[in-house]
Amino acid sequence: MKAVVSIIMGSTSDMPVMKKAAEFLNEMEIPFEINALSAHRVPQLVEEFASNAHKKGIKVIIAGAGGAAHLPGVVAAFTTVPVIGVPCRSSISIDGWDSILSILMMPPGIPVATVGLDAAQNAGILAAQILSTDNEEIHDKIADYKEKLKSKIVKANKDLKLHEYKFRTN
Amino acid sequence: MKAVVSIIMGSTSDMPVMKKAAEFLNEMEIPFEINALSAHRVPQLVEEFASNAHKKGIKVIIAGAGGAAHLPGVVAAFTTVPVIGVPCRSSISIDGWDSILSILMMPPGIPVATVGLDAAQNAGILAAQILSTDNEEIHDKIADYKEKLKSKIVKANKDLKLHEYKFRTN
Amino acid sequence: MKAVVSIIMGSTSDMPVMKKAAEFLNEMEIPFEINALSAHRVPQLVEEFASNAHKKGIKVIIAGAGGAAHLPGVVAAFTTVPVIGVPCRSSISIDGWDSILSILMMPPGIPVATVGLDAAQNAGILAAQILSTDNEEIHDKIADYKEKLKSKIVKANKDLKLHEYKFRTN
Amino acid sequence: MKAVVSIIMGSTSDMPVMKKAAEFLNEMEIPFEINALSAHRVPQLVEEFASNAHKKGIKVIIAGAGGAAHLPGVVAAFTTVPVIGVPCRSSISIDGWDSILSILMMPPGIPVATVGLDAAQNAGILAAQILSTDNEEIHDKIADYKEKLKSKIVKANKDLKLHEYKFRTN
Amino acid sequence: MKAVVSIIMGSTSDMPVMKKAAEFLNEMEIPFEINALSAHRVPQLVEEFASNAHKKGIKVIIAGAGGAAHLPGVVAAFTTVPVIGVPCRSSISIDGWDSILSILMMPPGIPVATVGLDAAQNAGILAAQILSTDNEEIHDKIADYKEKLKSKIVKANKDLKLHEYKFRTN
Amino acid sequence: MKAVVSIIMGSTSDMPVMKKAAEFLNEMEIPFEINALSAHRVPQLVEEFASNAHKKGIKVIIAGAGGAAHLPGVVAAFTTVPVIGVPCRSSISIDGWDSILSILMMPPGIPVATVGLDAAQNAGILAAQILSTDNEEIHDKIADYKEKLKSKIVKANKDLKLHEYKFRTN
Amino acid sequence: MKAVVSIIMGSTSDMPVMKKAAEFLNEMEIPFEINALSAHRVPQLVEEFASNAHKKGIKVIIAGAGGAAHLPGVVAAFTTVPVIGVPCRSSISIDGWDSILSILMMPPGIPVATVGLDAAQNAGILAAQILSTDNEEIHDKIADYKEKLKSKIVKANKDLKLHEYKFRTN
Amino acid sequence: MKAVVSIIMGSTSDMPVMKKAAEFLNEMEIPFEINALSAHRVPQLVEEFASNAHKKGIKVIIAGAGGAAHLPGVVAAFTTVPVIGVPCRSSISIDGWDSILSILMMPPGIPVATVGLDAAQNAGILAAQILSTDNEEIHDKIADYKEKLKSKIVKANKDLKLHEYKFRTN
Repeated sequence: MKAVVSIIMGSTSDMPVMKKAAEFLNEMEIPFEINALSAHRVPQLVEEFASNAHKKGIKVIIAGAGGAAHLPGVVAAFTTVPVIGVPCRSSISIDGWDSILSILMMPPGIPVATVGLDAAQNAGILAAQILSTDNEEIHDKIADYKEKLKSKIVKANKDLKLHEYKFRTN
Repeated sequence: MKAVVSIIMGSTSDMPVMKKAAEFLNEMEIPFEINALSAHRVPQLVEEFASNAHKKGIKVIIAGAGGAAHLPGVVAAFTTVPVIGVPCRSSISIDGWDSILSILMMPPGIPVATVGLDAAQNAGILAAQILSTDNEEIHDKIADYKEKLKSKIVKANKDLKLHEYKFRTN
Repeated sequence: MKAVVSIIMGSTSDMPVMKKAAEFLNEMEIPFEINALSAHRVPQLVEEFASNAHKKGIKVIIAGAGGAAHLPGVVAAFTTVPVIGVPCRSSISIDGWDSILSILMMPPGIPVATVGLDAAQNAGILAAQILSTDNEEIHDKIADYKEKLKSKIVKANKDLKLHEYKFRTN
Repeated sequence: MKAVVSIIMGSTSDMPVMKKAAEFLNEMEIPFEINALSAHRVPQLVEEFASNAHKKGIKVIIAGAGGAAHLPGVVAAFTTVPVIGVPCRSSISIDGWDSILSILMMPPGIPVATVGLDAAQNAGILAAQILSTDNEEIHDKIADYKEKLKSKIVKANKDLKLHEYKFRTN
Repeated sequence: MKAVVSIIMGSTSDMPVMKKAAEFLNEMEIPFEINALSAHRVPQLVEEFASNAHKKGIKVIIAGAGGAAHLPGVVAAFTTVPVIGVPCRSSISIDGWDSILSILMMPPGIPVATVGLDAAQNAGILAAQILSTDNEEIHDKIADYKEKLKSKIVKANKDLKLHEYKFRTN
Repeated sequence: MKAVVSIIMGSTSDMPVMKKAAEFLNEMEIPFEINALSAHRVPQLVEEFASNAHKKGIKVIIAGAGGAAHLPGVVAAFTTVPVIGVPCRSSISIDGWDSILSILMMPPGIPVATVGLDAAQNAGILAAQILSTDNEEIHDKIADYKEKLKSKIVKANKDLKLHEYKFRTN
Repeated sequence: MKAVVSIIMGSTSDMPVMKKAAEFLNEMEIPFEINALSAHRVPQLVEEFASNAHKKGIKVIIAGAGGAAHLPGVVAAFTTVPVIGVPCRSSISIDGWDSILSILMMPPGIPVATVGLDAAQNAGILAAQILSTDNEEIHDKIADYKEKLKSKIVKANKDLKLHEYKFRTN
Repeated sequence: MKAVVSIIMGSTSDMPVMKKAAEFLNEMEIPFEINALSAHRVPQLVEEFASNAHKKGIKVIIAGAGGAAHLPGVVAAFTTVPVIGVPCRSSISIDGWDSILSILMMPPGIPVATVGLDAAQNAGILAAQILSTDNEEIHDKIADYKEKLKSKIVKANKDLKLHEYKFRTN
């Protein structure tokens, strides 16, 4: 089993957020690896990782970081593999605004596919969607997953039935 | 020739921004289609478009919109194809903040791969990167493109030589 | 009894906020229905709901959502019934800013009547005010309600009397 | 002919924005009046206007203002008639943020139906939608108007055909 | 004893903030009154209060409010007495930003002397400073008060001595 | 003739804004002085100025500054005279936000009476209002000035008559 | 032992943040002093301190403050010694934005070297880096410190091993 | 002549801003070099540059960038030389906010000394101040420069004399 998705994060303190990406990939049975890698503390390792990702068979990179969050962009600079950035509302961040802007607003030539604040599960889904462009099996699993989202809403409506009001009609 | 990327936008007033995506795909020789589609004005067409995209062979959707920019998210709701969102700083927008937040902050289950404000060229590059995960030819073109970015910097340094100062040493 | 107001929300996690609209309508004896409906998870149901609202006799729709909050705008796209949007400061939101902007900043042609953050009670009052434009009974109830707000302030002043200071003169 | 909608604004400098509401109502053949009224300069006139609006037959008030924009909220305090607020990006405003927040974030009991920044046309449409809850003729005109929005998008797609690219497929 | 300062607030929920103004005035032995008054709930009382303030001998008004905070500005519209506005970070507010902007950004002709978020004590000090322009006794008390602020800093430095480090030199 | 108001500014580039304060005071026949004084460039002069203001007979200080705008707060630190701060949207500022926050958010003990962005005329009016607490002549002039603001609105309404619409009723 | 770094703060309530600078300098064996000094409460002491810093042998000043944070800028105005500003997210601040902007956005001629919100440890490191430009011993200690940061990441990766997933490959 | 300061920028489009740093260093007769270097386009060159800076004799690095501005932080990751960051309000930036936050909010261990938006001259001054900690000649030049700033204010006051008002007293 060889990883096709690589999850990286600037600090293990981001793991409670980032593990939601891991869980989704696991559920979809997509092989992945997880590493902590800091653009600022071990820049050489980041370069080495990113430069070799394509050759190693990695097809999508998911990178989470907070504050002046350079990891996703720096990785994107060293590779042609699509990089999904997860802005984290970590304790060093100013309510997440710095995390969002320093991942999203990349210069021409080096895109990062940014998802919402702390939205690591969505990053996992997006990674699976990217892989599904060439893999019908994954495609079908995602289609199934989307169907299940619908049934949650059906259940949600049942829960709402518990709120009874004299003038409620349904 | 069958489109593998579909570029859509909420209004033709976004075309001056969005055409940068088209130009990049054209340069990479990746077949694409372009349409104006509004989540608010022709919601049925949006549904029809998005529901059929995968079957039609579309592998990536690039959706640009401004203000309360619902197009990328609504399209993502109807398809498993990865959707790249381009927040546009259009005239109805409050300096781009609404465009960014209403594309980026999608709920769990429905990611949109958001790029920077007006960054349609980066959306084109990201689309090509996604296609390259399964296509070495495109991969090589992107690798070439990245090499050319480097040579621009070399030229830039030559331009900077024109700024002469007595205490400048290089 | 047939509902004239329809309360919808993107997720049942918004119910603690949205029930304040229900409570107000109930107090005013205005028949209403409540449903969970997600623009992203069950877009077809949203379309069906919105397309039929007018025919069913719904006169006002109250739609609450958080984050990239598309529900109110997407519903407004499918109907001529006035839509009141309630931006929710839900856990996936960046302090409510995304909820506000993605509901408020709608494009020309598709307005959403936006109320304050988590202000579902105000949404209920606004719905009643809209119904009162053609219904003197409701009008009188709202006028009564407004009178009661005044008496609260009178009581509030009594509470303030408890704060005694040597140099306070009243 | 008796006005059923009343358009007010804090200053005539807001007229270039607010006239879009007037134009829409005129197109819909809905009788309306227009006045300049300042919550800060002629507070007594504002009170008199708002207190009498319902008796005079006004069914919707559209109030535009910029900066610390108190007019819509102050009017709403004196009447049961629904008030639509139009935040204006006027020269005294800090990029429209103050206009939005001081209209939108009303306290419990006194809602203002806020539309987007400078979105006076949407305010006109919303007023018509409110009137249409009890008037099928207006309802049908709005339904027609919405149909026309769709045909604009069809035309827009024709314009996009002018952008020819070798790898464009449509 | 006749009040020369009048403290008003939009809701008694602002009293924990606003009482800091009362406490300062009390300490300075400046007679004051306190009332709850809502620009939106009892607009006629607000008008009556503000119109009569000068005649009654009120020399400064301190008005606190949160959210779309209209009270200070509406009061200022009805009087020539200087109005000090205290933006409150109340529960209905979006982190205080709405409170600040809707008090601060008043139109030409109707200033409100705004102090910091929840800074009711500073409002009390400012009121005393305004009174001191014509009252040497109050002036001397404020001068004394300012001297005491200095001694707090001296004490603070003593507290800092408790933090001992090998390489600390003082 | 001895100045009772002192207008200061961080840089002469703020004069186009600050002169509106001078013009208002001149119209009210209130003697004033104007000086450029920088908290950062000539801190000793600022200290000297502020320490002597009360003794010299200055009753109100109006201080304008932009960016990290320290002048109003630093002056307030050295005097008991009330200081009105005018945040300027100068070229070194980030759209005025820094100017506002660095003037408004003063610590306990040292208030600055802040007016809106570039609102130097309002600063002049506020200064006159402060002086009027002890001067009926100034009070009457301000009352007159406020009356004139009303007549402007009356004229504004005449201008609005020029906008004719078939369905306009007034 | 003579201090070469001086740590100052506006209030002892900033000590829990600022002590991280002290701890780092202590670890690096760099002599420092700590004082509480308020730009607004004891402006003369601030002037005296700053004017004499260079003569006393201070080579770097670290100044922390919150809200309208003038201390770093005012100190910078009186000295040629480089001043590092630490914006503190103190209780009087609006989520840190005022602290950041009032320290960062200094006018031409008076720079403050600003670090991140509450980032006093980084201020200590920056001070050591400045001293290291002329001191190889300190340089080597910082280089050592940076090496240790790397080993933390290695340890972090070990922690991540504890998260086991069926489809995790590393 | 060997450079002791190195000015780098992400793109030559930042040169109109960054040259103000060069001009100041030139005026102070401090040898410097200028290069364009992009953290995203030529990451290897950035690493090489930063890793060798200390050995080459560089004592301060000034790095300007806009948008998701990673250059200053990435350089800081590879060196112990103090890095001054200049956030640029470039065309790809959202009004400068992204530039500021992605330079300022660095993680623990890797500080960047951030100056104001586009404040390259201040970056030059700060570099000179850092060098002056060990160089009395530079110290004296900066002290001279600061004296000249004062005389500008004196001249500014003369300019203000041109504004004559009947009630101006100076």
